[in-house]
Amino acid sequence: MTPEFALIERFFTRDASSPFVRLGVGDDCALLDPTPGKSLAISTDTLVTGVHFFADAEPESLGHKALAVNLSDLAAMGATACACTLALTLPSVDEAWLAAFSRGFFALADQHGCALIGGDTTRGPLSITITVFGELDAAHALRRDRAQANDDVWLSGSVGGAALGLAHLQGKLTLAPNVLPRALARLHRPTPQLALGARLLGVARAAIDVSDGLVADLGHIGRRSVHGSALTAVIDWPRVPLHPSLLSVAPDMRQQCALTGGDDYELCFTAAAEQRAAIESIAAELGVSLTRIGSMQAAVGNEPHVVVRDAQGAAMALASSGYDHFTPSASPAA
Amino acid sequence: MTPEFALIERFFTRDASSPFVRLGVGDDCALLDPTPGKSLAISTDTLVTGVHFFADAEPESLGHKALAVNLSDLAAMGATACACTLALTLPSVDEAWLAAFSRGFFALADQHGCALIGGDTTRGPLSITITVFGELDAAHALRRDRAQANDDVWLSGSVGGAALGLAHLQGKLTLAPNVLPRALARLHRPTPQLALGARLLGVARAAIDVSDGLVADLGHIGRRSVHGSALTAVIDWPRVPLHPSLLSVAPDMRQQCALTGGDDYELCFTAAAEQRAAIESIAAELGVSLTRIGSMQAAVGNEPHVVVRDAQGAAMALASSGYDHFTPSASPAA
Repeated sequence: MTPEFALIERFFTRDASSPFVRLGVGDDCALLDPTPGKSLAISTDTLVTGVHFFADAEPESLGHKALAVNLSDLAAMGATACACTLALTLPSVDEAWLAAFSRGFFALADQHGCALIGGDTTRGPLSITITVFGELDAAHALRRDRAQANDDVWLSGSVGGAALGLAHLQGKLTLAPNVLPRALARLHRPTPQLALGARLLGVARAAIDVSDGLVADLGHIGRRSVHGSALTAVIDWPRVPLHPSLLSVAPDMRQQCALTGGDDYELCFTAAAEQRAAIESIAAELGVSLTRIGSMQAAVGNEPHVVVRDAQGAAMALASSGYDHFTPSASPAA
Repeated sequence: MTPEFALIERFFTRDASSPFVRLGVGDDCALLDPTPGKSLAISTDTLVTGVHFFADAEPESLGHKALAVNLSDLAAMGATACACTLALTLPSVDEAWLAAFSRGFFALADQHGCALIGGDTTRGPLSITITVFGELDAAHALRRDRAQANDDVWLSGSVGGAALGLAHLQGKLTLAPNVLPRALARLHRPTPQLALGARLLGVARAAIDVSDGLVADLGHIGRRSVHGSALTAVIDWPRVPLHPSLLSVAPDMRQQCALTGGDDYELCFTAAAEQRAAIESIAAELGVSLTRIGSMQAAVGNEPHVVVRDAQGAAMALASSGYDHFTPSASPAA
């Protein structure tokens, strides 16, 4: 057996005890037995060194985050996680790194019953591509194109903490020692909102996870709506729940992190006004904060897909509309 | 819309007309509706620049090959291709490169009814991770662990051509102009044997695709057999079908390319002797050459999992047991 296969077996082969998995790691293909009547939700995301994380990123957190950003896509569809594959490109075989990475990866996978069913390990610049599989009743899927005019717009948790942690690591500001750990935890250890997503099936209409920034991600919902013409998400800035770490920084940085910073992995969703009581009850049930931050409106002329209003109701100027991996000046975003 | 999203939409968003696909590219997840009673076969493979292909590789062939090596894993399980995801990491946005890559990719995908249902495009050193999905009746899946003692070992097509093409590109030898194109075609444009794999369900027992070299890949079947103890594949070298380009080179290179060279993507499978007539009839039906090259035997002591015998019946010494991505001296293998 070559070292490549030996390292795969050692760190990434475990009994896949899921009833969903007929055959796991080790053959040409894995075999899944989907639940009859359910649809399979599939998403894939790549994290690349120097682009999505710094080269010296702590491997246990990286293992957590690489899976978390993928599970977050299942959450945004309302799917329940079942399984995943892991394609890992490594510059060298570093046993300590692999042990820590797999520890972070499996801790989160186990928490969500997500069996690792296959993958590929190759040599090259550090890069991680995960494909996740979940199940759901497709009639209720939280598709981006399902928003309707007059829907409320809701946001789970708070936003801006991850972007603030990144700004500190990039040297754009220096956070106080009592603030820094909370901001970095948001950046390095995001929590995919799977329980919330699943609970919203049949209650919410459209949903998205906040990965590229609240304004950029909400824009996808406005643009893709299939009910009549495109929609504009009208958001009230004073209602946007800010991560506590943002209270320590200047208003312009606060606004930039909360509206255009990414990596929060909260769920932003739309729902009919009649669902307000049901949504507040879900918040209480799950112990998750859910805040109504605006509404979907029929777009007028070439109005943008997202408008953020200040306390006086005036449209705010937004600096940027989210992270773009191909902008030449783009810095590593963890 | 950012340039990243624009380029994804332009080259990789098409109508997924498969009945299997409920929702394709463009949402947080794709949604598949598996056929009731079937299992879903899943495989993932990464190709990295400088490891699996040269940096100046022709993009149309690369698009073909990146998908072909994944489809080949479905073939080796006997699955029928349905869909795939594509995670593409690019150093920059090069429109001509993307146009050619997507042309090669979709030409092969369309040929096999394989809908592109999602993916991710990121910035970084060129790397391609594809995850493929297929369906099959799991009771007949051509699993590696299904070989039995006294099974015949069969090989489709011929082996060694791809490795010979690679040896030329690496400067290890210089192929004649009348031989080179055929060897390079094997290297750059492998043909996944999907029709053959699907046709072998219920006829063959275990199968594998020849990606890392005949001896290395057959070793996986011998090692994983679950029927009694481990098995040894006993192969008769004079029976191994050689790619015609190998006739032009010295016997040692011929043997090395055919037995330990990779990238041929032929199917190697085991079947009971009673299936010989059925297999010959499948060969005729599909117009694919199928050659019986040996048999599976109960392993004796610590005998290796593969033994290759020469014309006199003596075990041959084998130089290497397949390509290992983490061997420091490993050269780029296309």
